[in-house]
Amino acid sequence: MLDFTFHSPTFFEFGRNAEDQTGKLAKRFGAKKVMLHYGQQSVIKSGLLDRVEKSLHDEGIETVRLGGVVPNPEASKVYEGIELGRKENIDMIIGVGGGSAVDSAKAIAVGIPYDGDFWDFYDKGQRAEAALPVGCVLTLAATGTEGSDSTVITNVEDDRKKRGYGSHFMRPVFSVLNPELQFTLPPYQTACGIVDMIAHVLERYLSNTPDVELTDRMSEAVIKTIINQGRIAVKEPDNYEARAALLWGGMVAHNNLLGVGREQDWSSHQIEHELSAIYGVAHGAGLAVVFPAFMTFTLEHGLERYAQFAHRVFDVEADFMNPRAVAEEGIRRFKAFLTEIGMPTTFAELGAKEEDIPMLAKRVKFNTEDTLGFFQPLSRKDVEAIFRLAL
Amino acid sequence: MLDFTFHSPTFFEFGRNAEDQTGKLAKRFGAKKVMLHYGQQSVIKSGLLDRVEKSLHDEGIETVRLGGVVPNPEASKVYEGIELGRKENIDMIIGVGGGSAVDSAKAIAVGIPYDGDFWDFYDKGQRAEAALPVGCVLTLAATGTEGSDSTVITNVEDDRKKRGYGSHFMRPVFSVLNPELQFTLPPYQTACGIVDMIAHVLERYLSNTPDVELTDRMSEAVIKTIINQGRIAVKEPDNYEARAALLWGGMVAHNNLLGVGREQDWSSHQIEHELSAIYGVAHGAGLAVVFPAFMTFTLEHGLERYAQFAHRVFDVEADFMNPRAVAEEGIRRFKAFLTEIGMPTTFAELGAKEEDIPMLAKRVKFNTEDTLGFFQPLSRKDVEAIFRLAL
Repeated sequence: MLDFTFHSPTFFEFGRNAEDQTGKLAKRFGAKKVMLHYGQQSVIKSGLLDRVEKSLHDEGIETVRLGGVVPNPEASKVYEGIELGRKENIDMIIGVGGGSAVDSAKAIAVGIPYDGDFWDFYDKGQRAEAALPVGCVLTLAATGTEGSDSTVITNVEDDRKKRGYGSHFMRPVFSVLNPELQFTLPPYQTACGIVDMIAHVLERYLSNTPDVELTDRMSEAVIKTIINQGRIAVKEPDNYEARAALLWGGMVAHNNLLGVGREQDWSSHQIEHELSAIYGVAHGAGLAVVFPAFMTFTLEHGLERYAQFAHRVFDVEADFMNPRAVAEEGIRRFKAFLTEIGMPTTFAELGAKEEDIPMLAKRVKFNTEDTLGFFQPLSRKDVEAIFRLAL
Repeated sequence: MLDFTFHSPTFFEFGRNAEDQTGKLAKRFGAKKVMLHYGQQSVIKSGLLDRVEKSLHDEGIETVRLGGVVPNPEASKVYEGIELGRKENIDMIIGVGGGSAVDSAKAIAVGIPYDGDFWDFYDKGQRAEAALPVGCVLTLAATGTEGSDSTVITNVEDDRKKRGYGSHFMRPVFSVLNPELQFTLPPYQTACGIVDMIAHVLERYLSNTPDVELTDRMSEAVIKTIINQGRIAVKEPDNYEARAALLWGGMVAHNNLLGVGREQDWSSHQIEHELSAIYGVAHGAGLAVVFPAFMTFTLEHGLERYAQFAHRVFDVEADFMNPRAVAEEGIRRFKAFLTEIGMPTTFAELGAKEEDIPMLAKRVKFNTEDTLGFFQPLSRKDVEAIFRLAL
C-alpha cells in the first residue's frame, strides 16, 4: 500500500425531499448570497430550482440565477459565471443538475478569486489557492462530482480541448442527494451514468500496486452493486431503491475512498475525452466503447487482475489452470452488460470514424511526452490500437 | 434504504512517518496551544510523543502534556484534563495512543467549553453544542475513534458505569495513521483490535432494513479483509501491509460509511460493556465472547442474513435447501477464527462468573425501558440467555 492522504469533508444530505434542506446547509456553511447554476429547462420545469431557491430564501439567503450549462460544460459559460459572480458579489455557488452544472459551478468557484484566466488551471498546470464554497443539488448519478475534487471543462474556443482539473478547494461543502429526482431520467442517460461510475472504480482498480486487498474488495463490492441495481434502474426508472443505490454508489465510486494507497490508471478517461470532445457523444457512452477495448489491449499485462475481476464481479468460475479464459470471459460479460443496458460498444454506434483514429490518438492528453496511464503505460501507437479494437 | 446524512470531514494522513506531519496538520486546523493526551509509558519510551511534540514546536505551536489514560478510559482523568486545559487555555487536544487516549481527549474537548458536568453527555442525555478541535495520532487499530464521532468513558465513581457518547463536534479534525507504530503491539492486543473492528461492521450489518446491497457488500469486503490481514498481523507483528490494511480497515469500519441508510443493532456492544466494566477485560476480548452467543441466539430471526454472511465472508457453499446449516457453519467458522487469533470465546476464559449473570444483565444499558437493540430487540431475559450461551 502506498502512503496517502484522504480528505472527504463534504456533508451529504441523502433521501426523500433532501433538496428542502439546501437553505439550512448553505446557512451552516456561511452563505449570504448564492449563485444557483444549472443547465437547460428540466430543473425549471420540474420545479426543483424553485424549491431550492425557496429553501434558501427561507433562511434569508439571497440568490442569483445562471442557467444554460450544456452537457460537456464549456469554458464560455464559466467565464460568464465568473463575471456575474464577481459583479453580484456572491459568496457561494450551488450547482443544481447533473455533473455538468456542478462541474461548471466548481470552475466558476475557483475562477472568481483568481486574478488570471481560470483556463490556466485546466491547461497550464496552474494550482488553485482558493475558491468560493461550492454546494450541489444532484439530479444525475454519474460523474461523482458531488463528492469529488475534480471537474472536466471543454474549451470550444481553444481547439475544443477537453481538460480535467481537481483541487480540494473545489470539493463541495455539501451535496444534496434525493434519489426521486432521478425518476424522470431516460434509460439511456441512466445507463451513461452507470458506465461512468463503473469506470471511476475501474480506473482505480487497474493498478500495479500490491497489497491493496481492502480497496480491491470494496471496489468489487461497489461495481457489483452498480451492475445489479443499474439493470433495475434502466428498466424501472422510478424504482427508488435502485436509484438510491446508484446515487450513493456513484459518490463512493469517486470520492477516492477506493483509490487510496494505490497507483491509478485513468488512461481510458483520457482516451474517451476525445470521443466526446470531437463527436459530442455522452461521456458514459464513450467509456462503454473504450473500456472493453482497453481491457482487451492490456489483457496480457493484467491477466491476474482481470481474472480476479471476472471471478469476483461477474461470478466466472475460478480456473487457475486457465486464467486467460477466466479473464476473457469477464470482459465478455462486462461487454454483454453494457449492451444489455443499451450502451454502444463500437465506434460505429458512436458515429466515430476509422479514418479519424490517427487524429484522435494525437489529441489525447498524455501524462508524459511519451506515455499515457500507469497500469500499462501506453504510447500513441497503443492508443491507436485501442481505438482500432473498438471499431 | 433509509434517509440519512453522512459527514466524515476528518483529514487522514496515512503512511510511513506520518506522525511527522502532526505539526503541519495542527497548524492547518488553527492550533496555537495543544494538549498532548496519552496513556502509559509506551509512547514516551518509543519516542513517539517527543517526535509529535517536536513537529508541533517546529510549527511554533505550544504544548502541554497530560498522560495517564488507562484502558477503558476513566472519568477522573477527563475531569483532570478539563481543569488543566482550561487553566492552560489550550485550543486543541491531540490524543496520542490507542482508542483510550483519543476517547479521553474527545471527552475533554467536549467538556472544556461546557458549563456543567461533562458526564451529563454520557449519562444524562445532554447534547453538546461545542468542543475544542481534536487531533489523533493512533497507535492501535481497533476502536475506529480516529474517524468516528463516538467515545466510551467509564465512571468508576458512578457505579463503574461505562457509557458511550457521540457528537459530530468530537470527530477528529485530523488523524495521523502510521502502520509502523503498531509493529510493537503484542498478538493479544492486535487480536482484540481485530475483533472490535469486525464488531463495528457487524453491528451495522445486522439490520432489518431491506435494499441495502451496497453497504452489505462493502461490509462483507471489509470484514473479509480484516480477517485475512488480521491472521497475518497476529503472526507477523511487523508485517507492514497487514498492519496497514487493519489500520485503514478499522477506520472504514467505524466512520459510518457502512452504516448509512440502514437500521443498526449495537446490542452486543452494550452487552459487552458490562463485561469490561466489571471484570476489566479488553473490549475486544469481551466482544469475542458475546458476538457468537448473540448470533446463536438471534439465528432464527436472522437466518437469511447469517446465511449470506457465511457464504460471502466465510465462503460457506450456498445451499438454499438448508440455509440454517449455512448460517450455522458461518458462525462456527467465525468462532474458529476468533480462537485461531487467540481470543477467548467463553465466560470462563474471561474470568466471568455464571452467578453474576443476573447482575450483569440488569446493568446493561437498554435503548428503551424494555428492549435492547434493533435487529431482534432483546429483553433482560434474552440478555441473560445470551450470557448463558457464552458460558
